[in-house]
Amino acid sequence: MLELRLVQGSLLKKVLEAIKDLVTDANFDCSATGFSLQAMDSSHVALVSLLLRSEGFEHYRCDRNISMGMNLNNMAKMLKCAGNDDIITLKADDGSDTVTFMFESPTQDKISDFEMKLMDVDSEHLGIPEAEYHAIVRMPSTEFARICKDLSSIGDTVVISVTKEGVKFSTSGDIGTANVVCRQNTTVDKPEDATIVEMNEPVSLTFALRYFNSFTKGTPLSNTVTISLSSELPVVVEYKIAEMGHLRFYLAPKIEEDGEEN
Amino acid sequence: MLELRLVQGSLLKKVLEAIKDLVTDANFDCSATGFSLQAMDSSHVALVSLLLRSEGFEHYRCDRNISMGMNLNNMAKMLKCAGNDDIITLKADDGSDTVTFMFESPTQDKISDFEMKLMDVDSEHLGIPEAEYHAIVRMPSTEFARICKDLSSIGDTVVISVTKEGVKFSTSGDIGTANVVCRQNTTVDKPEDATIVEMNEPVSLTFALRYFNSFTKGTPLSNTVTISLSSELPVVVEYKIAEMGHLRFYLAPKIEEDGEEN
Amino acid sequence: MLELRLVQGSLLKKVLEAIKDLVTDANFDCSATGFSLQAMDSSHVALVSLLLRSEGFEHYRCDRNISMGMNLNNMAKMLKCAGNDDIITLKADDGSDTVTFMFESPTQDKISDFEMKLMDVDSEHLGIPEAEYHAIVRMPSTEFARICKDLSSIGDTVVISVTKEGVKFSTSGDIGTANVVCRQNTTVDKPEDATIVEMNEPVSLTFALRYFNSFTKGTPLSNTVTISLSSELPVVVEYKIAEMGHLRFYLAPKIEEDGEEN
Repeated sequence: MLELRLVQGSLLKKVLEAIKDLVTDANFDCSATGFSLQAMDSSHVALVSLLLRSEGFEHYRCDRNISMGMNLNNMAKMLKCAGNDDIITLKADDGSDTVTFMFESPTQDKISDFEMKLMDVDSEHLGIPEAEYHAIVRMPSTEFARICKDLSSIGDTVVISVTKEGVKFSTSGDIGTANVVCRQNTTVDKPEDATIVEMNEPVSLTFALRYFNSFTKGTPLSNTVTISLSSELPVVVEYKIAEMGHLRFYLAPKIEEDGEEN
Repeated sequence: MLELRLVQGSLLKKVLEAIKDLVTDANFDCSATGFSLQAMDSSHVALVSLLLRSEGFEHYRCDRNISMGMNLNNMAKMLKCAGNDDIITLKADDGSDTVTFMFESPTQDKISDFEMKLMDVDSEHLGIPEAEYHAIVRMPSTEFARICKDLSSIGDTVVISVTKEGVKFSTSGDIGTANVVCRQNTTVDKPEDATIVEMNEPVSLTFALRYFNSFTKGTPLSNTVTISLSSELPVVVEYKIAEMGHLRFYLAPKIEEDGEEN
Repeated sequence: MLELRLVQGSLLKKVLEAIKDLVTDANFDCSATGFSLQAMDSSHVALVSLLLRSEGFEHYRCDRNISMGMNLNNMAKMLKCAGNDDIITLKADDGSDTVTFMFESPTQDKISDFEMKLMDVDSEHLGIPEAEYHAIVRMPSTEFARICKDLSSIGDTVVISVTKEGVKFSTSGDIGTANVVCRQNTTVDKPEDATIVEMNEPVSLTFALRYFNSFTKGTPLSNTVTISLSSELPVVVEYKIAEMGHLRFYLAPKIEEDGEEN
């Protein structure tokens, strides 16, 4: 028996909107610790990792570990039917091949339940070791999303370079080149407006902008985004989910070569 | 000579937006009583019935009964050119094959007149007998529109079931099933937020969601919608038009059979 | 060496949005006087003329006259990456085949520079003589845009007729005819809401609505638009750019003939 009651149901709506374009089918893993997902994108290049800790739910009952395969597009369709202020409860009976999403309006006048068929999804769970990063940048999530979108109108890849002064995003394409520099800035009125650079050594890495634009679908989840970079590791783009956990995206850097295709 | 002056011209704009997708060509009937329309949708399944009573117009002159055939898309195009605060006057000379829509801006600085050709439209006027309904549900029109839209993402038909406790909307499709229950609720701050069920006997009927979604284009006309149901009669979905009349949609229930096509 | 610093960078963004659909490639001419452009639309029917006077820039350095050929779509793509409150600086080295747009956020935390390749653009600079017009109409720019858009849903051409009382816009098409009359009106709360007609002699001219709808992309530049008409001259549709100059569109009237195609 599984029963997870999330008062701030809009969180789950936002999570699905953030990952449904990247991942088609995935297993949601439920244990005493929390509700989580780990999945590769359909082209097996990027990795998505979600964690919603049990403490963040108003009610959390998970009698035994369970892995539920879902089509994320169908799940998103159902969650779209929840109001933004609705309480969402996720229910599954032991051994059932369906999951039920229950939506309660704040006034309790409208109660909806949507039942979705579960599916078998192949997946291998990758261990992601804790790592030391050369540089960690925390910046406003809307700013990061704007930069990724702007640079996509010029080129296909972005070079992210971190120095003590700040972080630089660069691209080039047929019509020209673009550089956007965000300076370290901690003296802001609201803490979420800060741009903070923690750097052990300078780093400069190249990534496909297409994936970054997918990752920024996580923007509604958090005011800030954290980008962790090391020359030998995939970048981590992380959106914290307040008091519950996080949504993380991993992407390997492109290896720059002579005669590299665009 | 026909001259109908409607101070709240936006009402006529909203009426046209509500029916133009359902009905292509129709006769507007004008008499001393009021301005009305009755028309089947293009697939001859749903019936639209509009009444704007003469008392609701600032000036209402209709020397003799007249029936004016109009293409509703063209009429909607012209009415879209009226500002939302404009006064709209509809004029036609006796025997003329055109109708004129005059729009006056609130400051009278801008006066537009649009002349449209009339057309011959075949129509049979159906008598709609007053009927007793098993159940009448009144609910917020935006809530009803939201439910119809939400269920359309899951299935093609909706089962509406009314009991003393409230009204249930259900559907099912390839990805699963959905049930939305709206409880009777009369203790609300604003009267238009109430959900009120008047029931003589329980009723459960099936309809094509596609038509319901067309009907909900009437939502801007009224804060509330009234749904009247009987097992032997077409459902009536009614939007009251304040102090003037109503826009009503009629649709026969689907007969559930074994092996029914979707 | 060229360096033009425009504190209100959004002006340049709006100028590009206003002309990029009409003109594909054009030369921007830079002299001690100001930054200007003159170009025919791609079908060689309408003429666009832009002037931004040097006094309007916070910093204006132009060592020698220079003409820079740009693809306006690419330029618009780059300017779209500037925030609405950003300061925009345009830079070019002598003899360089590129131009750089630098965007500074109001807080100076984000500095972007976009470098675009210049191109050779053939152009002949037309002398536009100062002329006396039969009638000059000044009206709210949003009103003019609304009328052009509304009439386009009915017909392809507009007849503009000016009398002492006001200005009339007329069209006709398959579904009917339309006339919109704006009365002279100077007793308004806000000066920009006035409709002012200066008339030496009545004038009535016909134009292709398609071009007028392109011209009205200049609406965000100014609250008012000035339309100057003479029977022997192209109409001038002018949007003033506050304290800097103007964006003007020129279009020759259609010659009305019997048997004219639509």
